[in-house]
Amino acid sequence: MKDNADLNYAWAWAICEGLRAGGVLQVIISPGSRSTPLALAAFRHPELQTRVILDERTAAFFALGAAKASGRPTALIATSGTAVSEWLPAVTEADLARIPLILLSADRPPELRQCGANQTTRQTDLFGNSCRFSMELPLPEQGLYAAACRFAVQAAGSAHWPLPGPVHLNIPFREPLTPVDFPLPDNLQPAHLSRPVLDPNPEHLDRVAQAISSRPGIIVCGPETGTALPAHEIAVLANRLNAPILADPLSNLRDGSHDRSQVIALYDLALRNPSFAGEVRPQWVLRFGAMPVSKTLNQFLEGLDGIRHILVDAHGRWADPLHQTTDLLQADPAGVAQGLGSRVSPADEDYLQRWKNQQKRVREIIDEEAPEEKQLIDTLTLTLPENTLLLSGNSLPIRQLDWFHRGRERPLRITCNRGASGIDGNIATLLGMASACRQPVVGLLGDLTLIHDIGSLAAAKGLNATLLVLDNGGGGIFDHLPQAVLPEHDALFSTPNEVDIPAIVQGFGVDYLPTTPGQLANHISEAANSHGVSLLHLQLTRSTSLAQHKRLWTRLNVE
Amino acid sequence: MKDNADLNYAWAWAICEGLRAGGVLQVIISPGSRSTPLALAAFRHPELQTRVILDERTAAFFALGAAKASGRPTALIATSGTAVSEWLPAVTEADLARIPLILLSADRPPELRQCGANQTTRQTDLFGNSCRFSMELPLPEQGLYAAACRFAVQAAGSAHWPLPGPVHLNIPFREPLTPVDFPLPDNLQPAHLSRPVLDPNPEHLDRVAQAISSRPGIIVCGPETGTALPAHEIAVLANRLNAPILADPLSNLRDGSHDRSQVIALYDLALRNPSFAGEVRPQWVLRFGAMPVSKTLNQFLEGLDGIRHILVDAHGRWADPLHQTTDLLQADPAGVAQGLGSRVSPADEDYLQRWKNQQKRVREIIDEEAPEEKQLIDTLTLTLPENTLLLSGNSLPIRQLDWFHRGRERPLRITCNRGASGIDGNIATLLGMASACRQPVVGLLGDLTLIHDIGSLAAAKGLNATLLVLDNGGGGIFDHLPQAVLPEHDALFSTPNEVDIPAIVQGFGVDYLPTTPGQLANHISEAANSHGVSLLHLQLTRSTSLAQHKRLWTRLNVE
Repeated sequence: MKDNADLNYAWAWAICEGLRAGGVLQVIISPGSRSTPLALAAFRHPELQTRVILDERTAAFFALGAAKASGRPTALIATSGTAVSEWLPAVTEADLARIPLILLSADRPPELRQCGANQTTRQTDLFGNSCRFSMELPLPEQGLYAAACRFAVQAAGSAHWPLPGPVHLNIPFREPLTPVDFPLPDNLQPAHLSRPVLDPNPEHLDRVAQAISSRPGIIVCGPETGTALPAHEIAVLANRLNAPILADPLSNLRDGSHDRSQVIALYDLALRNPSFAGEVRPQWVLRFGAMPVSKTLNQFLEGLDGIRHILVDAHGRWADPLHQTTDLLQADPAGVAQGLGSRVSPADEDYLQRWKNQQKRVREIIDEEAPEEKQLIDTLTLTLPENTLLLSGNSLPIRQLDWFHRGRERPLRITCNRGASGIDGNIATLLGMASACRQPVVGLLGDLTLIHDIGSLAAAKGLNATLLVLDNGGGGIFDHLPQAVLPEHDALFSTPNEVDIPAIVQGFGVDYLPTTPGQLANHISEAANSHGVSLLHLQLTRSTSLAQHKRLWTRLNVE
Repeated sequence: MKDNADLNYAWAWAICEGLRAGGVLQVIISPGSRSTPLALAAFRHPELQTRVILDERTAAFFALGAAKASGRPTALIATSGTAVSEWLPAVTEADLARIPLILLSADRPPELRQCGANQTTRQTDLFGNSCRFSMELPLPEQGLYAAACRFAVQAAGSAHWPLPGPVHLNIPFREPLTPVDFPLPDNLQPAHLSRPVLDPNPEHLDRVAQAISSRPGIIVCGPETGTALPAHEIAVLANRLNAPILADPLSNLRDGSHDRSQVIALYDLALRNPSFAGEVRPQWVLRFGAMPVSKTLNQFLEGLDGIRHILVDAHGRWADPLHQTTDLLQADPAGVAQGLGSRVSPADEDYLQRWKNQQKRVREIIDEEAPEEKQLIDTLTLTLPENTLLLSGNSLPIRQLDWFHRGRERPLRITCNRGASGIDGNIATLLGMASACRQPVVGLLGDLTLIHDIGSLAAAKGLNATLLVLDNGGGGIFDHLPQAVLPEHDALFSTPNEVDIPAIVQGFGVDYLPTTPGQLANHISEAANSHGVSLLHLQLTRSTSLAQHKRLWTRLNVE
């Protein structure tokens, strides 16, 4: 071992071996000097794929997207200083959305901290409770290669189990940093890890089955929390119970080849009619996933005091801001659905039929009213190729999908940064998804969400993705909120964008195409079949949109 | 008081009154719903200036720039969720650079936390040790308006004293958020705060004066840490001691109307000659400010064991990664300089003369060699109007200023995000500076620093600033570092930029002008006298630059 530089490199290699054993495939590197040993080891490792992204915020959301699309922990490397703090927004999202991210921050050695050394900040435990596992590695030492490798496996494992999310290794290196002989450590034997199957407690299943059997109730499937919900098993359970499945677009139960005959997609619109909402008051609620996007549904649930509310969550971090849960089944959702399915008897068919009838009625109304965004959602979701991964922006896009997307048989997976519901990092998330899967990747974003993260288009090179931007000239969401009446509405809330989107997008080497509702189907198909990243820009007229929605809400309230 | 909405507004107004009393003028608002009461109160407050910036990362660096330029604490408002975590990079810089920032994060009320409510993260104490003061306000309550106001004054005060830096108020609001009657709280009497004068300990001054009197030594002025160094007082002290002042470009002692006859600006180049460095070994070092940028100087200092190293720092967070400090004078630098000045006798003139002679020799050499960047720095610093505020990027620009900027009599203040030395947020910092002062504001940045923060150009509207981008097609800094020899140099380190800078810059509505060394003086003058933000784009040939520098280093080593 010549000197620190080669020692640092072998140390970094041991970490990469551990990451690989822990399931990591992709490593996103932001350039820097202190991180040289890590960047070189990852780059040279034959089983790791690396990609260099300048902006660490972009890199982190990109890794988030890659981890969402692949289900694998994705690693980040950055140099010391503010570079590391740029990761926080994506870490916050990964924490709440339960996405495995592995943060590898290079650092100065301890003797250079707290004394004004250049580019030296407080990095140890920087992300606090947002990380499942956080440690500062010791300085590289030949006798500790196995330990470095072990900590990396352990970090990757903790990113998956018991609660998926971010993990952080802070890794100090002494200078010099550039290796000479590139030695590799011998005899590393990274451990194999496995996650247990979480079978539900049978007595608890018995009690819950007894409470819901033969009684009218609803199954509410909210957004996925990290892992896919078991669509088939939930459909079978619903069938046994004669219960409607109120499926959020992010639950991924609206779309697919499972039995969708009991899926109610248009519940938000249906429940806007108070007399219908009164008629279908259930005797129990069984919930999978996170809280649904729909405010209408959440208000309906809020009115259901005194009944049985059962929540299924494998991770003990349950989603219930209404504080109604009477039973928390901490187990894998598939096992819960199967276990309940074998224990329950069906309710009267009539209850389910009411939901189906109202959904049919709502469908007729929206087909008659045909607000522009409804047409767009129809066109988009009918056109997207099989197995498309669709990233929805927060604010209006996810609400419009929620209101209008009826579901389809050809598989479609819809995702959204719904952990913290930020409008930041969406372009980077989309590109990261595109980097980690072979299926078509499409984004549906508003104009402010585009502009918030427009610099991330610099990471588009070599990727295939389509981005549909619904441009209502600012934060149209506030037109639908109480702030709409304020004189400060434009200045403080809707904040119209004033940038030349085509010029900027093309400046990043991204194909730009203005589109219209009539051209959308063709443009989507073309973009999905072409190489590179394309942005389809669709201008909406905000006043028309608002008027159409208002008319629709009025009709739905009474019909 | 009608309901929560009006209560929330009056509460936010009380906070704004406190901010105003604490010296805040400017409030940067990022749009959001939960922050509605704060945004409205700040917007309607007659003595606060507000500006809306979509991207919270941009907003935070913008506030940092405004605080740097004005010396006043600058406030930020954002809604709950990832929005708040976007502030961390600028908070890290503000912490280390000692810049007063006031972070006002809106939050959900406690009952909506830890239960999966939308857009709800862990915000309390999110920034950990980086903040001087961090608290969660109670929920709005009519009887507590005076307390809310008081906490805001206290936060603003803590952003200044005893250690300037960021402070954080996390402010929960219950719905509804949109006020109806906009009531104002009565009888608020925010406290007046003042910072003490920090006189040095007279016995310690005596001891230090005795140690340095009549002996050859050097005064090293590093980068400002938040507040300006007392140029005149230090110059007088240097004169009493016959000591050279080694002045970092960020110390702001190279430029200005104080007595600059003992200022050695070109010490980095001078000390590259080992025989000169051996000849001028001092018997003491007196340091003001942070660690200097120059690696050559720092290596020179590192070799000076066993002598007296005196560091002056008002805040007890001293900068000494070499661990050499023998005396830490915790007091205002002006008082220390005056106190020592009245106690010391001069060393022999000969020592100072050696430094002056070598600086003269170095000046001849660089005038003969005339590397392109030296010419550019000369042109730039000679052309900039009086009282220009110049923001330097990290990486190469600050090093080139350090190497080549000789200083000038007309005042010029050079600043840099040198707390953590990140390449992020520089555009936003520049724009924030422009928002908070009347003098000309100019940035000198590399191409990667531009691209890292290019989205911040969306905040340029209505501001006047000039941005000179030295484009060497990627991270040219790595050409000067050991990584230059690696086969991975381009892929992992220099990372050439591949975006169309003119298209993107113009897409943001910023004037774009390609420039050349010959045109630079005219273009700088024109841009400084025109309205709006202009970007001057100067392409450098990397191989030429590197060859010229290498030849220069070789000559300096021996002559």
